[in-house]
Amino acid sequence: MRVLAAGIAEAARSGAEAEIVVEVEVSGWVHRIRDMGGVSFVVLRDRSGFVQLVFSERPVDAKGEALTPESVISARGVPSLNEKAPGGAELRVSSLEVFNRAAPELPYQVNGDAARTGIEAILDNRLLSLRNPAIRAIFKVQAVIIEAFAEYLRAEDFTEIKTSKLVGSGTEGGTNLFEVEYFDRKVYLAQSPQFYKEIMVASGLERVFEIAPAYRAEKHDTPRHLNEYISLDVEMGFISSEKDLIELEKGLLCHIFEKVASKNGAELALWNASVPDAEAVAASPVVPYEEALRLANDEAARAGGKTARMFDINPEAERILCEWALREKGSDLIFVNEFPRRYRPFYTYPLETGGGTATMSFDALFRGLEITTGGRRQHDYSAFLEALPKFGLKPEDFGGYLTLLKYGCPPHGGFAVGCERLTQKILGLASVKEASLFPRDRRRVEP
Amino acid sequence: MRVLAAGIAEAARSGAEAEIVVEVEVSGWVHRIRDMGGVSFVVLRDRSGFVQLVFSERPVDAKGEALTPESVISARGVPSLNEKAPGGAELRVSSLEVFNRAAPELPYQVNGDAARTGIEAILDNRLLSLRNPAIRAIFKVQAVIIEAFAEYLRAEDFTEIKTSKLVGSGTEGGTNLFEVEYFDRKVYLAQSPQFYKEIMVASGLERVFEIAPAYRAEKHDTPRHLNEYISLDVEMGFISSEKDLIELEKGLLCHIFEKVASKNGAELALWNASVPDAEAVAASPVVPYEEALRLANDEAARAGGKTARMFDINPEAERILCEWALREKGSDLIFVNEFPRRYRPFYTYPLETGGGTATMSFDALFRGLEITTGGRRQHDYSAFLEALPKFGLKPEDFGGYLTLLKYGCPPHGGFAVGCERLTQKILGLASVKEASLFPRDRRRVEP
Repeated sequence: MRVLAAGIAEAARSGAEAEIVVEVEVSGWVHRIRDMGGVSFVVLRDRSGFVQLVFSERPVDAKGEALTPESVISARGVPSLNEKAPGGAELRVSSLEVFNRAAPELPYQVNGDAARTGIEAILDNRLLSLRNPAIRAIFKVQAVIIEAFAEYLRAEDFTEIKTSKLVGSGTEGGTNLFEVEYFDRKVYLAQSPQFYKEIMVASGLERVFEIAPAYRAEKHDTPRHLNEYISLDVEMGFISSEKDLIELEKGLLCHIFEKVASKNGAELALWNASVPDAEAVAASPVVPYEEALRLANDEAARAGGKTARMFDINPEAERILCEWALREKGSDLIFVNEFPRRYRPFYTYPLETGGGTATMSFDALFRGLEITTGGRRQHDYSAFLEALPKFGLKPEDFGGYLTLLKYGCPPHGGFAVGCERLTQKILGLASVKEASLFPRDRRRVEP
Repeated sequence: MRVLAAGIAEAARSGAEAEIVVEVEVSGWVHRIRDMGGVSFVVLRDRSGFVQLVFSERPVDAKGEALTPESVISARGVPSLNEKAPGGAELRVSSLEVFNRAAPELPYQVNGDAARTGIEAILDNRLLSLRNPAIRAIFKVQAVIIEAFAEYLRAEDFTEIKTSKLVGSGTEGGTNLFEVEYFDRKVYLAQSPQFYKEIMVASGLERVFEIAPAYRAEKHDTPRHLNEYISLDVEMGFISSEKDLIELEKGLLCHIFEKVASKNGAELALWNASVPDAEAVAASPVVPYEEALRLANDEAARAGGKTARMFDINPEAERILCEWALREKGSDLIFVNEFPRRYRPFYTYPLETGGGTATMSFDALFRGLEITTGGRRQHDYSAFLEALPKFGLKPEDFGGYLTLLKYGCPPHGGFAVGCERLTQKILGLASVKEASLFPRDRRRVEP
């Protein structure tokens, strides 16, 4: 019967208490080997953690070949308590089975320090770098982010949807699209499930979320960009303004942070990371765009003024605004709302105050990075038609979208959280690519 | 304060008990309008159900235009109990707000009987047909299937992963792939996360699952096929044979059925459908391929013999085997294992008994349809290399895959459940396309 590494100390204790000797089996990867002459110590790694195996002679496989790091084995033996061993226990091995002996020269040192390896080496050796406990930890955290996202929204009566990623045209108007050969025609990879989310709100589900890949054919190759990413999408009906969405996102992020704190303690420790608490999330400010831009420039000037004047909220401004929010409000999170119309898609709902130049839209910035874009959408058919010429657009460009608005669409809006960006910023990773299992950028489509 | 339709009876009761008159607000879609001369009845539909609104005069919007079916409104009024009204209560409306007046001529009758509408009309009018309560119910069930799938596997210590859908080549050898223009090169849409699931098992996560789209560029246009579908993927390390996977899938399906039964009672009722109970799932037989084929032919002959002899387990045999399992074992589910090598991918693990012609693989058939394919995979580097020439393959075709096996890979295997097929068969839908929100087939990429 297999026992996980994390359960060996318990097995040793219960064996000692009952004064019986019971063999157990552990299985996993050879993390480290120390040959001490007469005795060999092997640290075994499994999904639960590490356990030290003690061999009274040099461990070999059935063919007599020496164990190598990363070989996959099962070992049987008697567990015993040992304060010096990792986890406080070890296994004195009586028999060994080698399932797969790893080739001796590893192209990437799995048991090394991930922080000392450059991102290119990590990604070039992805099959092995993912075995490094710190790197694997990134994806344990990401799994909990995804779980918590869905859990929170279900409790708020949202329904999970799965929509097509193959679309006839782009939601944002046709730029930055990857083209797909679809039988005898061309289609595109969806940049966002925007239109589908809106259809599903209008279907009567009212509140929907989707967890799915999204695609942007941007040529950027920066630590902020991925050409394929996991979009955590939300859309809801019967809202008044983007402020309803900001409230929803605060609750959602708070739940995600709490769940990560409770389930990923070990993973956070490996990255020396922590998540904001509920009080900090509640304190996160909501600042209208023009005010936020002024604030960013004032802060930049105050700090010494080497920064050139910023005319929009660029990555530098995002960083400065987050520093301000942390210093002044004690929050890692800040919402910027009321974006000018020129920065938002044509379907964004206008803000009635302020001369009609601003919109009911927002971004969420977390630890220096935009992690969310959202807003209320125009749901009124006539208002939508009237607005089109102002954007140089024609009704015939929006066949499906117009049907949505023509036959009963509630006031609605939504947002998307970039899953990799959130993961990156929770753990303090240098690049968003580190938070994607198999990142796709301009040069990388393997593995 | 908005009250959902499902809460109106409760609001009416508590108002009556407290002997106070409190107005509430309901919001939703106009499902049906009955003008009775002096009085008008409007059935309002929201995400929770239906509520009857009573208007003392003909309801109109702010411009004086009459309400139309599918218009989105909010109504305020006093709730009162009325046994004849749907849900046992109604709202006597004092004020009405029309958010979006639907154009009067609906291209699809939302409040009609979905069973009487052909699938082409349903899909051609997808934005409206999704509003039909029975059709929307399909996706309420699907959301619970997805939730239950993840929930069961998390409890079994599986980690959710999200892998790239853009791959350099196909896992199954390059046929049936959709080609994507990726900057200056061509890549493909992933047919399955097979290779990535295996990498993640070997990364030390050991047990992983993924919920994501998968793509098959098959030209088939049948009620069984989708070119884009949601694949519910599972992979686990340290298994002995496909029998471990079958046991896992039994437990998993049992949990999915139980959760659907408990959360989707209303949706199942709309389709006059039910799910197998735990006893039936436990009783589902596991029949080796050759025996299953013989059984299918014997059954066909017994039934009258018009069917031509079957030389493999084709859709007709799947149907017959399920009928047999239901009649003889009381189960809607049957597992066929030990598929001959010729029907399985090259990486399928050989079965040692039976002269090496069979494999540790299986299909699950549910209510006449294959919903799962799975098996143990070859994890041994030397055995894999030795087997390649038998399949006319060369090591250089498998760069990444060989790296996986070369550096410590545990015995492992997995399977995938077709989410739409499972949804279809739970509800008894005629075509799998009905179980996809926005199905993609050879002709259809809109909406």
